Amino acid sequence: MTVSREVELSGHIIDSGMMQTCFGAIMDLGGSFEVEEFRIGRHETQESYARLTVLADSEGELRTIVHELHQNGANPAHPVDATLEAAPADRVVPPEFYSTTNHPTEIRHEGEWLPVERIEMDCAVVVEPDTRRAYTRVLSAIEAGDLVVTGETGIRVQPPSRPRGREGAFGFMRGGVSSERPSTSTIGKVADAIAETKREGGSVLAVCGPALIHSGAREALAELVREGYVDALSAGNGFAVHDVERDLYGTSLGMDTENLDHPRKGHKHHIYAISEIIRAGSIPAAVEEGLVESGVMYECVAGDVPYVLAGSIRDDGPLPDTITDAVKAQEAIREQAHAADMVLMLSTLLHSVAVGNCLPSTTRVVCVDIDPATVTQLLDRGSAQAIGMVTDVGTFVPILTEQLLDGDRRALDE
Amino acid sequence: MTVSREVELSGHIIDSGMMQTCFGAIMDLGGSFEVEEFRIGRHETQESYARLTVLADSEGELRTIVHELHQNGANPAHPVDATLEAAPADRVVPPEFYSTTNHPTEIRHEGEWLPVERIEMDCAVVVEPDTRRAYTRVLSAIEAGDLVVTGETGIRVQPPSRPRGREGAFGFMRGGVSSERPSTSTIGKVADAIAETKREGGSVLAVCGPALIHSGAREALAELVREGYVDALSAGNGFAVHDVERDLYGTSLGMDTENLDHPRKGHKHHIYAISEIIRAGSIPAAVEEGLVESGVMYECVAGDVPYVLAGSIRDDGPLPDTITDAVKAQEAIREQAHAADMVLMLSTLLHSVAVGNCLPSTTRVVCVDIDPATVTQLLDRGSAQAIGMVTDVGTFVPILTEQLLDGDRRALDE
Amino acid sequence: MTVSREVELSGHIIDSGMMQTCFGAIMDLGGSFEVEEFRIGRHETQESYARLTVLADSEGELRTIVHELHQNGANPAHPVDATLEAAPADRVVPPEFYSTTNHPTEIRHEGEWLPVERIEMDCAVVVEPDTRRAYTRVLSAIEAGDLVVTGETGIRVQPPSRPRGREGAFGFMRGGVSSERPSTSTIGKVADAIAETKREGGSVLAVCGPALIHSGAREALAELVREGYVDALSAGNGFAVHDVERDLYGTSLGMDTENLDHPRKGHKHHIYAISEIIRAGSIPAAVEEGLVESGVMYECVAGDVPYVLAGSIRDDGPLPDTITDAVKAQEAIREQAHAADMVLMLSTLLHSVAVGNCLPSTTRVVCVDIDPATVTQLLDRGSAQAIGMVTDVGTFVPILTEQLLDGDRRALDE
Amino acid sequence: MTVSREVELSGHIIDSGMMQTCFGAIMDLGGSFEVEEFRIGRHETQESYARLTVLADSEGELRTIVHELHQNGANPAHPVDATLEAAPADRVVPPEFYSTTNHPTEIRHEGEWLPVERIEMDCAVVVEPDTRRAYTRVLSAIEAGDLVVTGETGIRVQPPSRPRGREGAFGFMRGGVSSERPSTSTIGKVADAIAETKREGGSVLAVCGPALIHSGAREALAELVREGYVDALSAGNGFAVHDVERDLYGTSLGMDTENLDHPRKGHKHHIYAISEIIRAGSIPAAVEEGLVESGVMYECVAGDVPYVLAGSIRDDGPLPDTITDAVKAQEAIREQAHAADMVLMLSTLLHSVAVGNCLPSTTRVVCVDIDPATVTQLLDRGSAQAIGMVTDVGTFVPILTEQLLDGDRRALDE
Repeated sequence: MTVSREVELSGHIIDSGMMQTCFGAIMDLGGSFEVEEFRIGRHETQESYARLTVLADSEGELRTIVHELHQNGANPAHPVDATLEAAPADRVVPPEFYSTTNHPTEIRHEGEWLPVERIEMDCAVVVEPDTRRAYTRVLSAIEAGDLVVTGETGIRVQPPSRPRGREGAFGFMRGGVSSERPSTSTIGKVADAIAETKREGGSVLAVCGPALIHSGAREALAELVREGYVDALSAGNGFAVHDVERDLYGTSLGMDTENLDHPRKGHKHHIYAISEIIRAGSIPAAVEEGLVESGVMYECVAGDVPYVLAGSIRDDGPLPDTITDAVKAQEAIREQAHAADMVLMLSTLLHSVAVGNCLPSTTRVVCVDIDPATVTQLLDRGSAQAIGMVTDVGTFVPILTEQLLDGDRRALDE
Repeated sequence: MTVSREVELSGHIIDSGMMQTCFGAIMDLGGSFEVEEFRIGRHETQESYARLTVLADSEGELRTIVHELHQNGANPAHPVDATLEAAPADRVVPPEFYSTTNHPTEIRHEGEWLPVERIEMDCAVVVEPDTRRAYTRVLSAIEAGDLVVTGETGIRVQPPSRPRGREGAFGFMRGGVSSERPSTSTIGKVADAIAETKREGGSVLAVCGPALIHSGAREALAELVREGYVDALSAGNGFAVHDVERDLYGTSLGMDTENLDHPRKGHKHHIYAISEIIRAGSIPAAVEEGLVESGVMYECVAGDVPYVLAGSIRDDGPLPDTITDAVKAQEAIREQAHAADMVLMLSTLLHSVAVGNCLPSTTRVVCVDIDPATVTQLLDRGSAQAIGMVTDVGTFVPILTEQLLDGDRRALDE
Repeated sequence: MTVSREVELSGHIIDSGMMQTCFGAIMDLGGSFEVEEFRIGRHETQESYARLTVLADSEGELRTIVHELHQNGANPAHPVDATLEAAPADRVVPPEFYSTTNHPTEIRHEGEWLPVERIEMDCAVVVEPDTRRAYTRVLSAIEAGDLVVTGETGIRVQPPSRPRGREGAFGFMRGGVSSERPSTSTIGKVADAIAETKREGGSVLAVCGPALIHSGAREALAELVREGYVDALSAGNGFAVHDVERDLYGTSLGMDTENLDHPRKGHKHHIYAISEIIRAGSIPAAVEEGLVESGVMYECVAGDVPYVLAGSIRDDGPLPDTITDAVKAQEAIREQAHAADMVLMLSTLLHSVAVGNCLPSTTRVVCVDIDPATVTQLLDRGSAQAIGMVTDVGTFVPILTEQLLDGDRRALDE
Repeated sequence: MTVSREVELSGHIIDSGMMQTCFGAIMDLGGSFEVEEFRIGRHETQESYARLTVLADSEGELRTIVHELHQNGANPAHPVDATLEAAPADRVVPPEFYSTTNHPTEIRHEGEWLPVERIEMDCAVVVEPDTRRAYTRVLSAIEAGDLVVTGETGIRVQPPSRPRGREGAFGFMRGGVSSERPSTSTIGKVADAIAETKREGGSVLAVCGPALIHSGAREALAELVREGYVDALSAGNGFAVHDVERDLYGTSLGMDTENLDHPRKGHKHHIYAISEIIRAGSIPAAVEEGLVESGVMYECVAGDVPYVLAGSIRDDGPLPDTITDAVKAQEAIREQAHAADMVLMLSTLLHSVAVGNCLPSTTRVVCVDIDPATVTQLLDRGSAQAIGMVTDVGTFVPILTEQLLDGDRRALDE
């Protein structure tokens, strides 16, 4: 028995790779296809259109194929409304709930396509018929009675298409990861992209690991915060501890980051630093009372740059400012992620994954780490405008800061 | 002005490296020394003794040096009692509190040396005069009024000395990390060490990352649990999710771990798996109702092997079984760590660091990861009996299991 | 001024990604295009055809674009003969010589399309009008008077297209590198692929690094050679030295690969082993006189399996069997590469790159290394049927051998 | 049966770790010891002395132990002359020849201790009685009749001892590898060390991999050569090819290292660059005729800085300047290594190992690579003054150059 369904693709379906992916998926999954209609855009600015009949040996196979095509932007030729089912209990979704990708998505409800707000991957979609809104919800936030999208119908996903023509500072953001790119030139491109984001009124989120402090990049990052290039900071307990340790004792992980001395009692400095902040009550309180006078956290407090310190099971202390509950910390990170127009992931896998999980595929991402495996893992999430750089964050941030401030002065001179 | 203090070292102070470290520390820190007395053990089984006068240019320098010597096992020649100060408030330690190493430690109280219970690094030491007990407390667990050890006097630290003579299965545990050791022979040694630990009535804690499931080692690990080689399990939400996903859908991260098929809807299986467990209420409930019928978590539930699933900010879900608060999760991990006689760290940096933070330097540790940086970082914590192996956990666990079960049968035959 | 040229694509131009690549290249290089004709294969088995007019602002730009399209399989709509120019001197090619890709290539000569023999990348193509043959030549082998193809016309390149339908044991060879695949299942697939290659009368080339010996895989590899699964071996001086060291002294790099003992004089064994072979005259002579009695080199000599030991500047010795001249060693490796139907690259970057440089894109390649960067670099060469596996060669080879020999016995039983 | 021998140690035998190593070796190898005499240096500037009787169960075991002690600086208490045997044929050493370490070594000949000239590891030692000279010879350079040291007697090895007191710019060179050091401060220390080496009239050898060019550090390195900070260069064919490619075509590996453009024909530039140099005859000839006008090789030619380009089996071309024979290339590298007072190993494993193989343990070494495994492997060779830095060579070299030239100007101002 052969079953079939008609799907259609439109847009820049060839150079985005959409058609290739769909053809491949059909063949991989054991189906076949017939092209019913195909109109190719005659110029690079014209869109193309394809209508296919997909065939499979069973309804089950067909559904698997159509599901896959769907994830890649091919939609049923004759759309119907999405199916909605009420969540039976808090945190419990209906069995066949639709789990999101991170691409822009629309839900067909009463004949109208509603854009899904705050799209991110691995969420359920809840529709509010009254307000005609659709938005994502993580499983743990589902409430009994939420109308959750189930099945595959009435859902439209738009994978990112290749940018056309002039692309601005983000034009270089293709080609993925490399440890063999020219380093300082690439940093210059990242500086341009940050400057452009700021010029356009965008918001930059810096996601920072403790290696940034150990590697001596603290002062440069503090300067970026002070000069307004960082609009929000996402980090962990360790990052803040070592940043404060450097202020209080001149060391990071017990090493003087300037003269490389290793004051031998230094390996206890981080625990003393935590103790001091606990005594003061919080980092802002410690800044207030003049205990902490410099560094990244200091600049955040002084400049009202909001930050999230998310806890983890390897934390010492933790600081009173650290959100120890993972679910609450995720919520705080989620707000940061959705507010950001550009994200710098600096030398942390854990926090970068947490932020990346909440990002739509359209947000600009720059990911910097000395470990190529980390960069690969972070870029491997289908972001349309992401660049990875395998380099030393201890040289990356100072050079970036120098180039941004130089550019600044240049801009002021003009 | 020159100030001086007398310290003494005793034990296997040469081949443990203690003397070398102390001489080096004095010179590094700008001090000098005179050897007042030196008795060398004439045979390798005899202990040695050294008494030094340490000299420095200022009291500050001298204290730094003496602190450092102290951490390495050199003690004041004329010991006095430790100083105790009451904690002024919950979570607030007295300013000069003593922060622990992970080596066996004693506190001198009213002329008597009390062993510090549950030693682990970066803790305060609390003394209970009534019960004549001393034990560690993490900063976040300090309560107002706790009598906390401050300063450096009256504290004795014993860095691990080199094992003498017959060393049993752990004899091979020296020489640190290597990706160039003979793999299957090394796995055989690890199997021997586990078998020996079990024969001696010891407890084995397995710390497991999700890569273990993706790499196809799930069935072998489940067998180890079922056969009683694993007494406790420490993992994260992701590990349990992918273990259950494999049971429910035959996949891990969407890939069939047996035939390598990649059912295209598979990348949603993990989120469906979470949803199913939430619906059931918990993993034990899901086992109870017959939903989950195999795998590592199943064997833990079936065999009453206690487990801790610690949450993190990158979790999907999370499962109802996951402890989302980092401090509470650390407490649970701490219990596991102190109960363990041998720890297997399998392909997870985050959870291994969390466990490692709570371990005394005397616990046997085997750390396996494909990333040499991870193994180096984990071994770099001063454990006396630790071995690192840079290998593929997906082949390590099956070969280990085979060797243990073979050895088992061999032992039964004898 | 706008200039234009017509190119055409045919074959499975959508699912191979050819059209996507060509469209992208035109836009990246600042050109534009008009689709003059487009016929899509209605079924997945039918080929498609496209004819485009490419436009650019200058003849230079246009040539750059057309060059790029050409490398990706788009050919001028109205082909003419290739241009031939005589090499002016030995090792000197005409200025605009055509430098090859590793894809199947044809040269149009007197109206006829000649297949380029022994295709590999970065070579010149020499045409012999008398014999109507075209073949590759590396620069260092060019002789004065050789008729070398120059320019871009009259050359047809066929990038690999996606396999259709039944794919046999190599079907799993897609999706590139991963350290998160199920290890033993993947090894099973590699075993199947080797078995299939042998069944089809194909030839397997093993490229081996010294880590293979250190990691204890020597005996398993020797067994593969003995059982006829390896038809040729490509390695370096170090591999052979450590293989022989193990035979003569029981160690590799000074460590006993079985009991992990580290006989302290062991670090000199490799240099003694070299000295012994020099004294004997060669490895075959040492086998002949009974000095060497086991191991990979022994099995090669005993079983007449041809091998190449290529020298490098880090060699100790070297052995008399090692080809110390890089150009001569490359020639020997080139012969091996072109004779191979399947290549196993086992834990060596240097030798794998050397072999890979000589391979056409149609040869099956399996690349195994514990360093993901090595695997990525090796797979990044446009082979159509290549798989990378990030695992421990010390467990990979024994498991592979077990599975092949098991399969063997199974096959015999049937 | 117990056999024994007396050995003695003198010097800074405690803080150099010599005693610890010797005690450990005896116990590891199953022996025991009695301390016959022990005089400890009462101050840190005084040397110590120990005389031990080593005991073992058999003469074989005893010899193994004594061999091991010997390698670590313990010498027989009653020295006799070294045994000399004539090499029976070219490249053939007497069976029990002594194979060197890389530590300073002396040979006792007719009652006199001769220093071994050009010490490096894994060599034979040849003594010339007439000239009373002893020097190393690699196996392949041994000639029939050479008087080769055999056995273990009459040989004295001095492992490096810990530097005392003021240590100058190299003081920071302890503590091995870290990716978590403060990067720019560490680079400052390396700059100081280079400046100090030059001030003392020393010679700096730069060992360079092609990644240095790809990562955009070419111009900075060229400046270092031009300004006289590099006295010799050791690299491979690929380094020179990409350096010249950048001069001729503005690209490296086909990418424009300044604006990151990827001219699509670029991936053929390296092969064209080779062809151009072949046509010119050599790099110096190409500089002479004005073809090559900038870059590292250009500055070497222009400034008469000697260089060695060593061939390998992965070379394209190769350039006429490349030494293709590994043994000849090693000889050239050996000359460079022995002439160097400081060696910078920049982003190449192959060439760094080749140079490192020829270095005595007293030469200063700085090793820079983005891969920690490479740095670890290179430092793992017992050099007394070696530092490893895990960082991006593409930012390291520009920052180093800036700091050296800044320091230069500062020095001129004073």
